[in-house]
Amino acid sequence: MSTTDGSASARAATSGDEAGAGSGRDAIVRAARRAFTLRPYAEVTMRGIAADAGVSPSLIVKRFGSKEALFNTVADFGAAADALFAAPPPELGRHLVLTMVDLRERFGGDPLLRVVFSLGIEDERTLLRARFREQVTDRLARALTGPDAALRAELIAGQLLGLGATLSLHRPDGAGAHTSAERLADLYAPGLQRLVDGA
Amino acid sequence: MSTTDGSASARAATSGDEAGAGSGRDAIVRAARRAFTLRPYAEVTMRGIAADAGVSPSLIVKRFGSKEALFNTVADFGAAADALFAAPPPELGRHLVLTMVDLRERFGGDPLLRVVFSLGIEDERTLLRARFREQVTDRLARALTGPDAALRAELIAGQLLGLGATLSLHRPDGAGAHTSAERLADLYAPGLQRLVDGA
Repeated sequence: MSTTDGSASARAATSGDEAGAGSGRDAIVRAARRAFTLRPYAEVTMRGIAADAGVSPSLIVKRFGSKEALFNTVADFGAAADALFAAPPPELGRHLVLTMVDLRERFGGDPLLRVVFSLGIEDERTLLRARFREQVTDRLARALTGPDAALRAELIAGQLLGLGATLSLHRPDGAGAHTSAERLADLYAPGLQRLVDGA
Repeated sequence: MSTTDGSASARAATSGDEAGAGSGRDAIVRAARRAFTLRPYAEVTMRGIAADAGVSPSLIVKRFGSKEALFNTVADFGAAADALFAAPPPELGRHLVLTMVDLRERFGGDPLLRVVFSLGIEDERTLLRARFREQVTDRLARALTGPDAALRAELIAGQLLGLGATLSLHRPDGAGAHTSAERLADLYAPGLQRLVDGA
């Protein structure tokens, strides 16, 4: 996986309110989000994040305190949800696939998948699941009309998580890795759109 | 989550060739699979598995050796794939949803989701991803006809992983937790079937 991500738009899409808070902080937050995306919490180290961000470990401690505090700072899906849900319901299925692929490329990782790493663990990562439900599932449910909106929102969230999971899982030599976002949307969006429509 | 699972059929569906190898071994394997399903590898302990299996830690060491060796023993999706793919293509979408829900209930955990925990980590868990590709994705691709079979198989695998992820993520108070398998299939199977059919 590429860990380079230099575009301002990628930072805006994945970092939210961090913009303008200083390049050191921004680099740390992006490196932390990548680290917590790619590895189980217990295996993430401040030293690794510092190396990826190109700063000293002491700078991270100075700005964020503990690993737990840093985790809490990056445990936010709001900016990803803003991008994912920025289409009217009749076009949402395709928009979700194209945006997911785009966010993954620009972020150098999956914007949602880290919540799966938190399953079954009762500690600070419980917060991550609660945030996901609030910022992704519940927000989506409110945007849906028709019966079973909460259930359909859960299943749409599942398909988004599953898309990221399978693209990550079969990388780098899988078929999905060599397929355009448009073709992925041709195949994957209809199922999503059906859940959006509430058939 | 329930961790009780006393049925012989559940063991047959999730344990494969372990049947008849002795109840101690069987209980250890089931407890190990649950543990590696529910927690990141680094957080799984032999002592925890022993407690769940109702045996002594020394018995596990005697029968399996190291944690890594035990992991390699349970890193197998073959039995789950046998159950999931036991339907002809025209009926496969619905069968996949019903079987996934059934396996999750009987196993006391998700039969596939643990592969997601291994993402981004290059150690013994790399084996888990290779097994998943062989036993799930590649096997499914061979069963599909039409264009882009490998890609469609990856996307079907993604939807299965996503279904398990979202059911686990929104448990215990989410909408999916209170929905029948038949209703889940009504909503989730059409997207899967479309990928099976290769529209």
